[in-house]
Amino acid sequence: MPTAAPVLAGALRAGRHAASNASPTCRLTQPMLKQHFNSTQARQFRLFSKPPSPEAKHDSPSKWLFPPKTVTRPLSGRPLPQRRSFLLNFMYRSAALVGTGVAFVGLCGAAFFLYDASTYKESAEAAECRVSELALQPKRGGPEDLPILDVLIDDDDTEEKQAVKDKPRLVILGGGWGGVALLKELNPGDYHVTVISPKNYFLFTPMLPSATVGTLEMRSLVEPIRRILARISGHYLRANAEDVDFSHKLVEVSQTDARGKETRFYVPYDKLVVAVGSTTNPHGVKGLENCFFLKDINDARMIRNQVIKNMELACLPTTHDAERRRLLSFVVSGGGPTGVEFAAELFDLLNEDLTKRFPKLLRNEISVHIIQSRGHILNTYDEALSKYAEDRFSRDQVDVLTNSRVKEVQSDKIIFTQKGENGETVTKELPMGFCLWSTGVAQAELCKRIADQLGHVQTNRHALETDTHLRLNGTPLGDVYAIGDCSTVQNNVANNIVSFLRGLAFKHGKDPETLELSFADWRGLAADVKKRFPQAVGHLRRLDKLFNDFDKDQSGTLDFGELRELLGEIDSKLTSLPATAQRANQQGFNVMARSAAGLSANDIRDGDVDAACYKAFEYHHLGSLAYVGNSAVFDLGGGWGLTGGLWAVYAWRGVYFAQSVGTRTRVLMAMDWMKRGLFGRDLISF
Amino acid sequence: MPTAAPVLAGALRAGRHAASNASPTCRLTQPMLKQHFNSTQARQFRLFSKPPSPEAKHDSPSKWLFPPKTVTRPLSGRPLPQRRSFLLNFMYRSAALVGTGVAFVGLCGAAFFLYDASTYKESAEAAECRVSELALQPKRGGPEDLPILDVLIDDDDTEEKQAVKDKPRLVILGGGWGGVALLKELNPGDYHVTVISPKNYFLFTPMLPSATVGTLEMRSLVEPIRRILARISGHYLRANAEDVDFSHKLVEVSQTDARGKETRFYVPYDKLVVAVGSTTNPHGVKGLENCFFLKDINDARMIRNQVIKNMELACLPTTHDAERRRLLSFVVSGGGPTGVEFAAELFDLLNEDLTKRFPKLLRNEISVHIIQSRGHILNTYDEALSKYAEDRFSRDQVDVLTNSRVKEVQSDKIIFTQKGENGETVTKELPMGFCLWSTGVAQAELCKRIADQLGHVQTNRHALETDTHLRLNGTPLGDVYAIGDCSTVQNNVANNIVSFLRGLAFKHGKDPETLELSFADWRGLAADVKKRFPQAVGHLRRLDKLFNDFDKDQSGTLDFGELRELLGEIDSKLTSLPATAQRANQQGFNVMARSAAGLSANDIRDGDVDAACYKAFEYHHLGSLAYVGNSAVFDLGGGWGLTGGLWAVYAWRGVYFAQSVGTRTRVLMAMDWMKRGLFGRDLISF
Repeated sequence: MPTAAPVLAGALRAGRHAASNASPTCRLTQPMLKQHFNSTQARQFRLFSKPPSPEAKHDSPSKWLFPPKTVTRPLSGRPLPQRRSFLLNFMYRSAALVGTGVAFVGLCGAAFFLYDASTYKESAEAAECRVSELALQPKRGGPEDLPILDVLIDDDDTEEKQAVKDKPRLVILGGGWGGVALLKELNPGDYHVTVISPKNYFLFTPMLPSATVGTLEMRSLVEPIRRILARISGHYLRANAEDVDFSHKLVEVSQTDARGKETRFYVPYDKLVVAVGSTTNPHGVKGLENCFFLKDINDARMIRNQVIKNMELACLPTTHDAERRRLLSFVVSGGGPTGVEFAAELFDLLNEDLTKRFPKLLRNEISVHIIQSRGHILNTYDEALSKYAEDRFSRDQVDVLTNSRVKEVQSDKIIFTQKGENGETVTKELPMGFCLWSTGVAQAELCKRIADQLGHVQTNRHALETDTHLRLNGTPLGDVYAIGDCSTVQNNVANNIVSFLRGLAFKHGKDPETLELSFADWRGLAADVKKRFPQAVGHLRRLDKLFNDFDKDQSGTLDFGELRELLGEIDSKLTSLPATAQRANQQGFNVMARSAAGLSANDIRDGDVDAACYKAFEYHHLGSLAYVGNSAVFDLGGGWGLTGGLWAVYAWRGVYFAQSVGTRTRVLMAMDWMKRGLFGRDLISF
Repeated sequence: MPTAAPVLAGALRAGRHAASNASPTCRLTQPMLKQHFNSTQARQFRLFSKPPSPEAKHDSPSKWLFPPKTVTRPLSGRPLPQRRSFLLNFMYRSAALVGTGVAFVGLCGAAFFLYDASTYKESAEAAECRVSELALQPKRGGPEDLPILDVLIDDDDTEEKQAVKDKPRLVILGGGWGGVALLKELNPGDYHVTVISPKNYFLFTPMLPSATVGTLEMRSLVEPIRRILARISGHYLRANAEDVDFSHKLVEVSQTDARGKETRFYVPYDKLVVAVGSTTNPHGVKGLENCFFLKDINDARMIRNQVIKNMELACLPTTHDAERRRLLSFVVSGGGPTGVEFAAELFDLLNEDLTKRFPKLLRNEISVHIIQSRGHILNTYDEALSKYAEDRFSRDQVDVLTNSRVKEVQSDKIIFTQKGENGETVTKELPMGFCLWSTGVAQAELCKRIADQLGHVQTNRHALETDTHLRLNGTPLGDVYAIGDCSTVQNNVANNIVSFLRGLAFKHGKDPETLELSFADWRGLAADVKKRFPQAVGHLRRLDKLFNDFDKDQSGTLDFGELRELLGEIDSKLTSLPATAQRANQQGFNVMARSAAGLSANDIRDGDVDAACYKAFEYHHLGSLAYVGNSAVFDLGGGWGLTGGLWAVYAWRGVYFAQSVGTRTRVLMAMDWMKRGLFGRDLISF
């Protein structure tokens, strides 16, 4: 007698048919069932010899009277598919991935087309437009009786602009790193913001050397200021700031009109931020008109044209040998990051793209030289990194001339003095077809004028001095700020604290000279110093040691003279901030940034609300990096550094990609790097 | 007693477990089997009441003695999953698509990075380089005793270049449409090719108006000539062709060296192709120094800067109303495709991007004017299309001034005369801040010099005359070709055929004037005309009708006078070719293109091998198209035309995308269009 158990095994095999056929298209028909049944019977004793347990026969009748809800199951009679080989399987999966991927990309493309189609404006809209009469015909006034822009022509353009119309006027001079960082930090609706700059774009300066040779396109490095201003409904004027009248709170602005005539007018402010940056430092060298500079996007264009023009001239057989070598001699004066990166990019261009398209003769006669006044290039970096960069360059046949000072630049040669090992100075000449001048920064005209006006308060000849809240020294507290390259933070801890204590002593009718500070007093004072001069924190870690060191008479207290000496020691340790994009960026974020700490009346000293409300500026050095030709160096500060090949180049790009001003520039930069990879740089000049 | 049939049904349900569990992880254990078995027993009578057929019990023993190879089947005891809802299913599928798509894109990205990493050249290779002494110190000679470049400095650079060193020298003057089309058609190794052009790039001129406003980047429209030359191992010299000495086969070339001094030299040729294009036609108008032109990529850059500069100036509140309107008055002089497309692109910029970022006041004061001397803009197009473009512009508030001739351009206004409806001429003034001059073409200096040299053979004052094989008339047969804008094909059918017949008659001692052509003679002659003058084919379709029409005396034969009259009639119907990129491109492809037909001695007439070997040039007009502001017009010839909105714009782009010179420019153009869609145009000037 057949029992059910072995039948089950056969049926299980039959069930496999269902399992192996994922598409439920073929329903089980009566003859098919019969066939299964027959074959199941035939195999009945094959697997199990044990008879079925008796309970199975006497199962509760409720189960079959009220059977559980069953689902009909489609079943295919087709033969079992064989397990595919690994290779076939892999190929099938790859094809599926590629197919789905292509479909996905296609869908994205179609979606983009739909979006793109929505970005065209069918026809011009007759925009109604309210403009105040006062905006079109400004009142005249101020010390020089010039038009005063109390109202701007786009003050009523949108609801958002109308909302900020009567807010305090924040005027920002300059659209560089400092100004733009501030713009990104401002809350919409807080201020009526006006940016005044001769250039209507922000330039991502660290990547400028890449644009000179076409690794990046120039337009990928710029972001229109108007686009940045849109978020806070700000205004932009393409003009030059000429002077500031601090008592009337007016910025004097000039603009050359279409006929070349200069017009001047005033822009009033409630708060003014000076962020005009710096100019090139000529170091008193003659003949700089024969040099190229690298401050602006137009400079990059001119450099690109000149490099390619020289190469084309060098191709002509009528150009004799010495002239060809001169044309192909590229000199970089200045071994800082800009000069070094330009030399590296130039070398890449010559090495990767030139040889492919231009006569080989050129490659062998090209020379790149870096003239550096110090003992090493990248001298602000860790020495190991400088050394690495120098080694890299020497391998790439880039000639690094250290301890050399340029005396004069002529149209076809550069004259410089080089210090020998024994200290003797030798004057040398280098024929050149191109010279880049990148030797540090000097004060802009506007800053000189401001410093002159403020007189003895401003003693630094290179930058505008501010307090630690970035407020311009000598101007009404809280009115005027200066950030970025054009400014320097004055860390006069000793003066500040000593005069504060003196004032306090006088107020309490005491002679400050007889003041004695206990260790507890000193600790309190140090906490105050730390808050006001964040840069000093690093030097105020061992308070007990400092106290003991400067308590010369071991009296257990610091007298006034001892305290002054202690603070002076700290002052001497504070260094001035570097003139970098990083610093300007951090200062931009700091100006008028809300303090996390609450405000208590006790904190306000001499009515200085800023000092109580906002945190003092503290510069956090996040490291320096430089591209040195298919490799990059990272100076992370404190002697930590990284150097490396291609991975470092990608990391270097990654850092700037992340630092970039917005999505637009990021997409553009990524596209440019892709273009370089796919097609190389285009050696075109126009 | 239980039978197997209903058991099967239960087991089938069990099989479903296997079916529904795709991952074969859970093997069937003994207790699990028992459970299945029990439940199967319980349901035994549920589905089938029919007993099993008796044959099943007596199946052949061979089947269970030698059972078929069985496969163990994993089975899951987990509950059956429910059928998912459509929505869930859809979401699951979408997620899978997106996931796979993203993975695919990621993989592509990773692959690109790997490829990209391979494109960096680690360090400079010390390339060995062979340069002939003769290349560096060329021999002097020729009529003016200048250096002759018999050998170029890169002749020995690569094996491919060495291979073509001694091949016939093909010199091409100009790197525009004609020259580049020829370069793309040449077989590698056939010629030693040298391109002489003052610009080291090919410019995709039809898209130039798009570059003026930033819809496309300038670099996306250019392709370095050296890159195009690489395929055929050609050479490039950045220099100006000044003159040609046809007897010595020398091109006189000038180049300004780095110090601004002009050097001249000779480039020898075996075959010369003149494809220098044309210059702007001043039409004798005064003050063109106040105009912008649109021939070159640098022109596009200057236009872009000027447009944005004017807008920035117009933003300043010190700019008074009349001056603002003047600054924002953009005039286009010339209603051809270039002028019309520029006006359309400019309008897009102002309409789509300007209003977003600039004060609204500007939008209301902007005006765009097109001054056209004819009765319609796009006058070479079908009239319906011209009308459509004019309607489009009038809707977009672009002011079209027809029947107007510019008299003078001053720095701040343009003076023109307009014909009224009654034929009277009125002189008008239009204040303007920008004027584009795009009113047709004039002959380049080199062509004038060549025409003067060739004397009476060259009678056309606007272009160099060639025969239908594009050979420059008046030069030794097969030496010199002229293509593109600088040339015109002389279709003097009558002269050519009549003088040929006359020659033939004299040879046979007959008087040509007494010649009588039967219809069969005429048919043979017509076949010859068709081959030599392909442009005449359209006018030689009804040979019998022509024969009858011109057989004035109904003699059944054509006498010499009648034939001359007939051919003259055909001549008068042939129009000169348009000065377009399309024509230059087709001519470029034609010059020295191999004929498909075989060569037989009979075909050679007067030793003119070219005429026998190569097909005569036939211009196929593929249609004209123009962008007219969010819509485009297509003139397909013969009165067929298309106009349309956004789909036509995409089609218009598609045509140029396909026509573009290479993959690089295509990718770049696509990226640019994407950029415009995503971020708009950047209103930056530098």
